[in-house]
Amino acid sequence: MAPTLALVGATGAVGTVMVDIMNSRETWPWGEVRLIASPRSAGKKITVRGEELTVLALAPEVFDGVDVAMFDVPDAVSAEWAPIAAARGAVAVDNSGAFRMDDDVPLVVPEVNRDKIAERPRGIIANPNCTTLSMMAALGALHHQYGLRELVVASYQAASGAGQEGVDRLYAEAAAVAGKAVGEVAGDVRQAITAAGLGEDSPFPAPLVFNVVPWAGSLKEDGWASEELKVRNESRKILGIPDLKVSATCVRVPVVTTHSLTVHATFERPVTVAEAHKIFEAEPSVVLVDDPAAGRFPTPADVVGADPTYVGRVRQALDFPNTLDFFVCGDNLRKGAALNTYEIAEALVG
Amino acid sequence: MAPTLALVGATGAVGTVMVDIMNSRETWPWGEVRLIASPRSAGKKITVRGEELTVLALAPEVFDGVDVAMFDVPDAVSAEWAPIAAARGAVAVDNSGAFRMDDDVPLVVPEVNRDKIAERPRGIIANPNCTTLSMMAALGALHHQYGLRELVVASYQAASGAGQEGVDRLYAEAAAVAGKAVGEVAGDVRQAITAAGLGEDSPFPAPLVFNVVPWAGSLKEDGWASEELKVRNESRKILGIPDLKVSATCVRVPVVTTHSLTVHATFERPVTVAEAHKIFEAEPSVVLVDDPAAGRFPTPADVVGADPTYVGRVRQALDFPNTLDFFVCGDNLRKGAALNTYEIAEALVG
Repeated sequence: MAPTLALVGATGAVGTVMVDIMNSRETWPWGEVRLIASPRSAGKKITVRGEELTVLALAPEVFDGVDVAMFDVPDAVSAEWAPIAAARGAVAVDNSGAFRMDDDVPLVVPEVNRDKIAERPRGIIANPNCTTLSMMAALGALHHQYGLRELVVASYQAASGAGQEGVDRLYAEAAAVAGKAVGEVAGDVRQAITAAGLGEDSPFPAPLVFNVVPWAGSLKEDGWASEELKVRNESRKILGIPDLKVSATCVRVPVVTTHSLTVHATFERPVTVAEAHKIFEAEPSVVLVDDPAAGRFPTPADVVGADPTYVGRVRQALDFPNTLDFFVCGDNLRKGAALNTYEIAEALVG
Repeated sequence: MAPTLALVGATGAVGTVMVDIMNSRETWPWGEVRLIASPRSAGKKITVRGEELTVLALAPEVFDGVDVAMFDVPDAVSAEWAPIAAARGAVAVDNSGAFRMDDDVPLVVPEVNRDKIAERPRGIIANPNCTTLSMMAALGALHHQYGLRELVVASYQAASGAGQEGVDRLYAEAAAVAGKAVGEVAGDVRQAITAAGLGEDSPFPAPLVFNVVPWAGSLKEDGWASEELKVRNESRKILGIPDLKVSATCVRVPVVTTHSLTVHATFERPVTVAEAHKIFEAEPSVVLVDDPAAGRFPTPADVVGADPTYVGRVRQALDFPNTLDFFVCGDNLRKGAALNTYEIAEALVG
């Protein structure tokens, strides 16, 4: 009998993208599908692959008979409910931060470490955070050939990484400054936003429109932002390199969706641009766009909505041996969240 | 007799900022001031320190009797006219790229290498490009104490780095997308810009609003952008470290004015965050804004229009010895261009 798939958080921002992904897959290995959300959203109708489904309220018994349960919900909800789903016999694939660094929970990017899905003593598999995911397919492919040793990254993170409220805030700020000559004097942008009646209750700690904000997540030890430590710790776990050297600086930019990163990656062995191009071209989930003479490199506006990671600006570092500098763009709601979660679910039954 | 100061390019984008700076200096060591521009702009009236001056047309004889001539003009104009000014007895302080890497032309940031202004066999002193300048005061202060060895930087460069046409384009693109839900599907931003009648003749090789563009300058060897090589070569020359290891990736962001950079800097000797803070606090041209617990870090919107370089997010790298990660913002039209040029001129007579 075809396995049963559940989606917890079906009505949220990532859950909505997940339904799109489910509706657009060419092959479909699943039988019954259950859409689950908070009691507030229960009863809503959502069409999945031609069938109108009624959203169920989250409760222990909705997991009975479920083979794979995907969770696109906040950390606290996952922390409570993924173990319940697992106890009822489902494999929980969790997109929150609740279990990523748990030693008994594999952290999986199928292109990189698909084999880890079998090692799940808690019945839970974690999906990496979107910033790390944006570069993992490209880095994993290089690592398998050349042995990654060091990583210095800077991010250009989209507003939707902070959820729908992040997107709404960016649009509202953009409307507030439209048609005004702002940003030529300090305070212009803040004044325009305040004048438009936008309060301080932003998901971002500073104006985002016509600005960049060097902060993502919460404050951790020694001035590090949680997002920066996630990039370090999750990269190490996914790639299986416990002593990988990583420095990341995370910066929010006024882009709606699609995270970008500059990557400075040092390997055990020398690697040329031509070799890196060949590896990227051979990796199905990576698209190489690297012809600056023709003005071709990835940008978020051209990548949003696409499943693969886009890579360009590949250069051999002039002064650092065995080192490449490159630029990646990945849709943070697709590969960065819903798509990778779905691919893990698919790998479990594939 | 008080020295005579000339400003070539007085009516351009940087020249206009230069006039602002001249009007706001507390001390004024100059006697006569001559404003010079192309014949097209000659005859315009501009007020400098209470006196209405008539813009003169560029010609060899306008440099007669000039002590210091500041050039804020395109490379080709500087390449032709700075030597003419020097031949007529002026010291030319040039903000273009024409002479920066000339061995007989010092490249000066007064806080870092003020002594080099005396070594000018061609009678020309060069001002660094704005991206390099944005981090030089902060890096120079650290280098003097700890000995800089390696630099990995990523830039977040403002539209005005591409001149007034860059600013105009960003405003026009922002107006084109205002009120539209764009950036959720690839092509949305491009469609909105095209629908608004904005052509392809942009100073940027891709849409800039709701986007980031990993390109600045022209294509050089092996996929490097000219701006990235400038960061490397000019940093080496200014800091006097010919073998400094540098990798830079330059990215344009939808910010009007003020460049930002993430900096990963490795030194000969260990340096703590507390020591770095002390050095930044002691450097008059640097402002430290580094209290993430209180939501305090530099952003372009808060720095634009200010003279100093703003530094924050200072962290000791977790995995790289003797290494700091930090974030800097500097107004690319002030310290990044006009202000540093003026400070060189002032140092010549101070």
